[in-house]
Amino acid sequence: METNAPMKAGVIGLGSMGLGVARSLLRAGLEVHGFDVRPEPLRALRDEGGIPAATPAELGGRVAALVVLVVNADQLDAVLFGPDGAAAALPPSAVVLSSATVAPEYAARLGERLRAMGLLHLDAPVSGGAAKAAAGQLTVMASGDPAAFQRARPVLDAMATKVHALGDRSGQGSTVKMVNQLLAGVHIAAAAEAMALCLRSGADPQAVYDVICGSAGASWMFQNRVPHILAGDYTPLSAVSIFVKDLGIVLDSARTLGMSLPLAATAHQMFLGAAATGHGGEDDSAVIKIFPGVPLPGPRSREE
Amino acid sequence: METNAPMKAGVIGLGSMGLGVARSLLRAGLEVHGFDVRPEPLRALRDEGGIPAATPAELGGRVAALVVLVVNADQLDAVLFGPDGAAAALPPSAVVLSSATVAPEYAARLGERLRAMGLLHLDAPVSGGAAKAAAGQLTVMASGDPAAFQRARPVLDAMATKVHALGDRSGQGSTVKMVNQLLAGVHIAAAAEAMALCLRSGADPQAVYDVICGSAGASWMFQNRVPHILAGDYTPLSAVSIFVKDLGIVLDSARTLGMSLPLAATAHQMFLGAAATGHGGEDDSAVIKIFPGVPLPGPRSREE
Repeated sequence: METNAPMKAGVIGLGSMGLGVARSLLRAGLEVHGFDVRPEPLRALRDEGGIPAATPAELGGRVAALVVLVVNADQLDAVLFGPDGAAAALPPSAVVLSSATVAPEYAARLGERLRAMGLLHLDAPVSGGAAKAAAGQLTVMASGDPAAFQRARPVLDAMATKVHALGDRSGQGSTVKMVNQLLAGVHIAAAAEAMALCLRSGADPQAVYDVICGSAGASWMFQNRVPHILAGDYTPLSAVSIFVKDLGIVLDSARTLGMSLPLAATAHQMFLGAAATGHGGEDDSAVIKIFPGVPLPGPRSREE
Repeated sequence: METNAPMKAGVIGLGSMGLGVARSLLRAGLEVHGFDVRPEPLRALRDEGGIPAATPAELGGRVAALVVLVVNADQLDAVLFGPDGAAAALPPSAVVLSSATVAPEYAARLGERLRAMGLLHLDAPVSGGAAKAAAGQLTVMASGDPAAFQRARPVLDAMATKVHALGDRSGQGSTVKMVNQLLAGVHIAAAAEAMALCLRSGADPQAVYDVICGSAGASWMFQNRVPHILAGDYTPLSAVSIFVKDLGIVLDSARTLGMSLPLAATAHQMFLGAAATGHGGEDDSAVIKIFPGVPLPGPRSREE
């Protein structure tokens, strides 16, 4: 009916990913409503032309599409179905894009609950990080009803350059994201283990990095994270604690299937070890700190 | 002195890698001598213009540069220093390129032994596989005396498109190769584990492959080996047994350093498990067969 009015879209969870998505929606001309428990990102959103909401329910009453970019399934449950939750306030046939990394079984159940309320669900985990979120260049691993895809289209177009359509059932998108996170987590831990061996062997770490990036040992994560180790800079782009959580989801989900995942389990122990020794808030490349006796490059060594 | 005569070079170990290198040397115009314990590759070499030798010693008496591409350190020892070994027969200042994957400590000791005999040593492990060996497009991770590099130059130019100069001591090349093999082995096992989870979850494996290849979970090995799994084709390009050996070298070497490598150890157990259940001679992607209850694509499923 209001084909010429901009779509009213909401974003719940205005962290580095969610705020980036909200900005991308604003840039695409959508009317953007936002909610977060912290006041700072709400102010930032308002300054850039968005409309803050006081509760998820208030936001839900105003939008036709809602992207939820909170940290985990508990928060997703709270903002959708808790006191002042958004789900009950959304208009009929509104679409909810759940973009947090959650277990596929959780995503499937979430779809059932939303459909029972007359809503559409797109299981829509994302990858790409904060910079790509802000640029509207995320990758979305999506599954759901064709109607959910159609309704979510303006939002997907604004937030992502690549939308993988992975099936018509909630849970299929999260399955692919889970497989991706298994590999991403193992590859970060493997990059750290390999560089620990390199440093402990006395090899030149920059030369090793350059050789490996062009060899059969290369991975996206090796190429992306090892420079943090070489610079001795553990400012978190994505923190150790994220992979404690995400590999935990992978392992819980595999346990439900009755399946052992030896490498994911080992990498999870490595991230847990790094978090246990106080590095949970550092960049995930800090998992290299679990290896004792390794002469890590420090920021100081750059001044020498 | 004989600046216009072609260099006389030898290759010991005419498997898929060594025969490929021999062909590349022939194509570059070198006089190529070859030795192998099997008659077939010697005949192939002769048919293409090379000169077979009856023993490593006979070959050693004829060449100024020798590439050794046998399987492991024991074979390297035997063909160089055993009865009829090549080392004692080589002319003064000949260069030996040891290109098998061996422990860095072994490579360092090998350099000492050769130098004590008046010979030059280039620690020169390779990567790239049989096809690149045949095309003269290997990557060499080399270390040694500048004199060894200089003497080996015509051979390196003929066999490789990329020669990484990694230092002036034997062992430095093998250290980098060891770090590469750690990553390569872990990434193959991780690719298998991830695809096992994908298949067990009922996700479409081709769609998952396509998504992961463009995502943060990508690795060179994932991209290269998963198609073998999708095609149900375990014809060995590089066998499971190679990574039983190579990760064994990595772990032995780390043990010497007093260092634990949780992921390399886990991946090694996975390859050992695959070999123990009869898959040692299959393509290394067959490590996925250690996961019970996973509906693997078979060649039959392509006909359905």
